[in-house]
Amino acid sequence: MESPIRIGILGYGNLGKGTVKAVKQSSDMEIVAVFTRRDPEHLQLEDPAIKALHIDEAKNYQDQIDVMILCGGSATDLPKQTPQFAQLFNTVDSYDTHAKIPEYFASVDKAAKASGKTAIISVGWDPGLFSINRVISEAIIPHGETYTFWGKGLSQGHSDAVRRVEGVEAGVQYTIPSEKAMDRVRSGEKPVLETAEKHRRVCYIVPEEGYDVSKIENIIKTMPNYFDEYETEVHFITEEVLKEEHSKSPHGGFVIRSGNTGDNNNQLIEFSLKLDSNPEFTSSVLVAYARAAHRLAKEGAAGAKTVYDVAPSYISPLSNADLRKGYL
Amino acid sequence: MESPIRIGILGYGNLGKGTVKAVKQSSDMEIVAVFTRRDPEHLQLEDPAIKALHIDEAKNYQDQIDVMILCGGSATDLPKQTPQFAQLFNTVDSYDTHAKIPEYFASVDKAAKASGKTAIISVGWDPGLFSINRVISEAIIPHGETYTFWGKGLSQGHSDAVRRVEGVEAGVQYTIPSEKAMDRVRSGEKPVLETAEKHRRVCYIVPEEGYDVSKIENIIKTMPNYFDEYETEVHFITEEVLKEEHSKSPHGGFVIRSGNTGDNNNQLIEFSLKLDSNPEFTSSVLVAYARAAHRLAKEGAAGAKTVYDVAPSYISPLSNADLRKGYL
Repeated sequence: MESPIRIGILGYGNLGKGTVKAVKQSSDMEIVAVFTRRDPEHLQLEDPAIKALHIDEAKNYQDQIDVMILCGGSATDLPKQTPQFAQLFNTVDSYDTHAKIPEYFASVDKAAKASGKTAIISVGWDPGLFSINRVISEAIIPHGETYTFWGKGLSQGHSDAVRRVEGVEAGVQYTIPSEKAMDRVRSGEKPVLETAEKHRRVCYIVPEEGYDVSKIENIIKTMPNYFDEYETEVHFITEEVLKEEHSKSPHGGFVIRSGNTGDNNNQLIEFSLKLDSNPEFTSSVLVAYARAAHRLAKEGAAGAKTVYDVAPSYISPLSNADLRKGYL
Repeated sequence: MESPIRIGILGYGNLGKGTVKAVKQSSDMEIVAVFTRRDPEHLQLEDPAIKALHIDEAKNYQDQIDVMILCGGSATDLPKQTPQFAQLFNTVDSYDTHAKIPEYFASVDKAAKASGKTAIISVGWDPGLFSINRVISEAIIPHGETYTFWGKGLSQGHSDAVRRVEGVEAGVQYTIPSEKAMDRVRSGEKPVLETAEKHRRVCYIVPEEGYDVSKIENIIKTMPNYFDEYETEVHFITEEVLKEEHSKSPHGGFVIRSGNTGDNNNQLIEFSLKLDSNPEFTSSVLVAYARAAHRLAKEGAAGAKTVYDVAPSYISPLSNADLRKGYL
């Protein structure tokens, strides 16, 4: 039995918490420490056996950590942290600002090549598993169209937007894929679909007491960019119902490739996720790719990598012989 | 622009025909020749511009072919051909006798390592894309169950079985996944399901004139191993309807991973295929992995490989920079 892969975790928000849980479900790994910018004394770790340390101490743990999983946000944390930490550790992160990925890749690649470390960037489900399915399905069926639908899922950005509306005390917004649009795609029709045609939006709002709810509904439904182009439903609920029924972070979605081979035969490839907990799932993907980072680093694969550079066997705890025997 | 990948095709059954069509849809590839054990003069190629040659001439084409796609059957062709051809060419094949894959791998690996060639074995959708999804989804969600459902699809073995029944002139059998079983899996229940509970079987039979159809129906429904354990429907149709509605080879299926993360949150990963033409789709997968075989060979990766050893970027015609920019 090989010695366990030693994992460091940077950040203890939803993603960091999910990562602790996911490592515990992986029998070939162990957690060395959780690093935080906060005072580690005040970090309320669910498992008191796990060490909490200040981020400044990380540099002293280079010999004790095989892979550092970076659990910060894409807006400001990761663009700064990943190039720094890739100088010291093999890293995995979930950077998801799609438009800036090439630039981010270049900056992480430079740091990781200089240090001889492996840094797998933009790991999760989109970017991540969805990206893999887009590329594999298009490589196999070159003539066709690829569709991505998101949901049913809690959208953080849209939930923030409804909560800023006057008279709203609390609320959440779900993005829901349009069944009609999905049926058209699955039929082989290959329609041209705008994002707004592919999704509808459903809001659950707790209004301030006595506030005119029809006014809230109107402001939400006509909000530019966020809602005006979409089929939108607004439901008013109580604080209690919000807490009971809308406190999880479900998400998911569909990647569908509809194409043709040979004499116009329709071929449909579909990948989907239905997640009770979006952050826990993303953490689980990060942890599986930490295994790959460790193995790639042992092979000397220095530099930044993406999910496209990682063969499936690298994320599995099983040996290649076991995979061939049990899973082909 | 790089020069095209030069493809040889061995065998011109359904798979070989599909491979010709799939290479034509791939702008970075060209067909050098189709090789056959038959008299090549009599090979009726749909495209007369494609060269047909006798299998014995293949050895003279080593310098002109980058990858040989082996389109023979798993029962007798591939176990003999692949170790022979891996001595001369990089190869891709669709060997699908699941239980014998480790033994087959060893024999191909030995030949390919000796010659310095790359041989990707057992490529297609099951084994193939389904295998990839089983491994990736289990690596990400270690606590859970994986379910494979096949269909709706024409089953060759079961169609042969019904055609052997006395009084049957012609017929086909479709394997259909049980919606009830799929719903239970998708609900997060994680039931234990036998193959017979996961599928039902539907037969379309052309009876011989005047034959007692109830007798045929009874023989089919009670046929051991093939039908007796399954919910089976038998429909009697005319020769014309058989020809019009049942002459394609549709297939498909589902791989579903149902598991839990953290505090018992359900997470569902689903991959599915709905194929109008099973052989054309398998050929398309072979052709995409021929691209990977060519690249791996250029990197010096000698020996037998499986889909588990191939990173997604290797099967895509796009550059890594384009993949990062457009598909992450």
